[in-house]
Amino acid sequence: MNKHNPILNIRVVLSHTTHPGNIGAAARAMKTMGLRQLYLVKPRHFPDAQADAMAAGADDVLRDAVVCTTLDEALHGVVFTVAMTARVRDISIEVKTPREAIPQLLQHAASHPVAMLFGTEMSGLTNEETSKAQLLVKIPTEPEFSSLNLAAAVQLLCYELKMAAQNDLQVTPEIQPASHEQLEGYFEHLERTLLEIGFFTTQNPARMMQRMRRLYARARLEPDEINILRGILNVATEYNARLRARYQEEMKNVPEH
Amino acid sequence: MNKHNPILNIRVVLSHTTHPGNIGAAARAMKTMGLRQLYLVKPRHFPDAQADAMAAGADDVLRDAVVCTTLDEALHGVVFTVAMTARVRDISIEVKTPREAIPQLLQHAASHPVAMLFGTEMSGLTNEETSKAQLLVKIPTEPEFSSLNLAAAVQLLCYELKMAAQNDLQVTPEIQPASHEQLEGYFEHLERTLLEIGFFTTQNPARMMQRMRRLYARARLEPDEINILRGILNVATEYNARLRARYQEEMKNVPEH
Repeated sequence: MNKHNPILNIRVVLSHTTHPGNIGAAARAMKTMGLRQLYLVKPRHFPDAQADAMAAGADDVLRDAVVCTTLDEALHGVVFTVAMTARVRDISIEVKTPREAIPQLLQHAASHPVAMLFGTEMSGLTNEETSKAQLLVKIPTEPEFSSLNLAAAVQLLCYELKMAAQNDLQVTPEIQPASHEQLEGYFEHLERTLLEIGFFTTQNPARMMQRMRRLYARARLEPDEINILRGILNVATEYNARLRARYQEEMKNVPEH
Repeated sequence: MNKHNPILNIRVVLSHTTHPGNIGAAARAMKTMGLRQLYLVKPRHFPDAQADAMAAGADDVLRDAVVCTTLDEALHGVVFTVAMTARVRDISIEVKTPREAIPQLLQHAASHPVAMLFGTEMSGLTNEETSKAQLLVKIPTEPEFSSLNLAAAVQLLCYELKMAAQNDLQVTPEIQPASHEQLEGYFEHLERTLLEIGFFTTQNPARMMQRMRRLYARARLEPDEINILRGILNVATEYNARLRARYQEEMKNVPEH
């Protein structure tokens, strides 16, 4: 029981898994999301070289895996179990999507061991196995092609756990937007430059600047980027002035006809 | 282009995949969530029996897979690309979680082809590949064990798409994004112009172009806007073109010695 990290109280229970590669891939999927407790109910082949290969570095999870002969053994001490299903049965346990079910599981995991239960590759869980769960989870799929790879289903549930666990902790870093004055300074500079290099001779300046404002509003410019863009404007103006001077100089030397 | 089901406008692009089993597993993952368009950029082995085995019934997706020699080919006609990354790079496009990014992708998919881009099993995408995307997606993972199996990552993103599509409000995108080719044409023109006007004498060109790509990726340029921006580039270098034309004209009239 881990009081500080609920994720560590969550068991992944794989029942009667046929292909050892799927056990290894499930271990890898768990470890990417911070889960460590793997329980295997009568796996056909385990340990196995194929499991090791697919674990791709999650060999600690495989090494610590608990091999059980019954599901009851694997669920010993667990207070809340969600069971995967690919079909909606007529039995009366509630069926939810992973997104609905996982927060509930996580809540229980804050204080007790809990489990996510997965059946065999071909036929999933038996009704008897399913009946030991408190909640059924159905991953939304295309009705005519609904069977996920076992490890892919484990990955998806572990990901939902990770997302739910960090929901209130972390926000992805936003960009550092430039200030109003920095933006206005840029637009003023842009308009002046476009006038200087002769862009507005064929364009309506006000309308064009509106379009530029709209474009850069979507980009939400950062102060650094404004510096770069203004640097380009400066160089373009210098270049243009230099060439224009040369052009006019040469034109002057052309004898008039 | 499918107007009724945005999911069908989404390409899964796998670049330089090493293990054919992962291609098959990715096809299966896609099909469970209703995606059909698989693009393979230089796969090491394809078609392959291992791919067929792992597809587990998604052989139609494999059969229709488009094998390309370049990423540009795979992204032809695409207006919005999200690229997977396992690490946060120092200079990069905006990075979001799948849950943040997918609704944006789906919105574009309502009216245009879009893409989700995945790199190789060992090293992911190159910086050059990543730079062609408008948005980076990082799946939240444990920092010390962050590498998902390729097909597991595809499963997860396709699942997020399915979830987003289900509670979709079907908002029509307010902007008309430019195509991949139009964008690349602009960046090529921008780089050429910055070189010509002498901007790169004090700047690192590659780094600067990365920053420009990042900025304009956020803006999601429209075709009209690209025309305007390229018009500005033309005007900025126009005097040089005139000078050159005049010079060539004069050289022609000079008798050979």
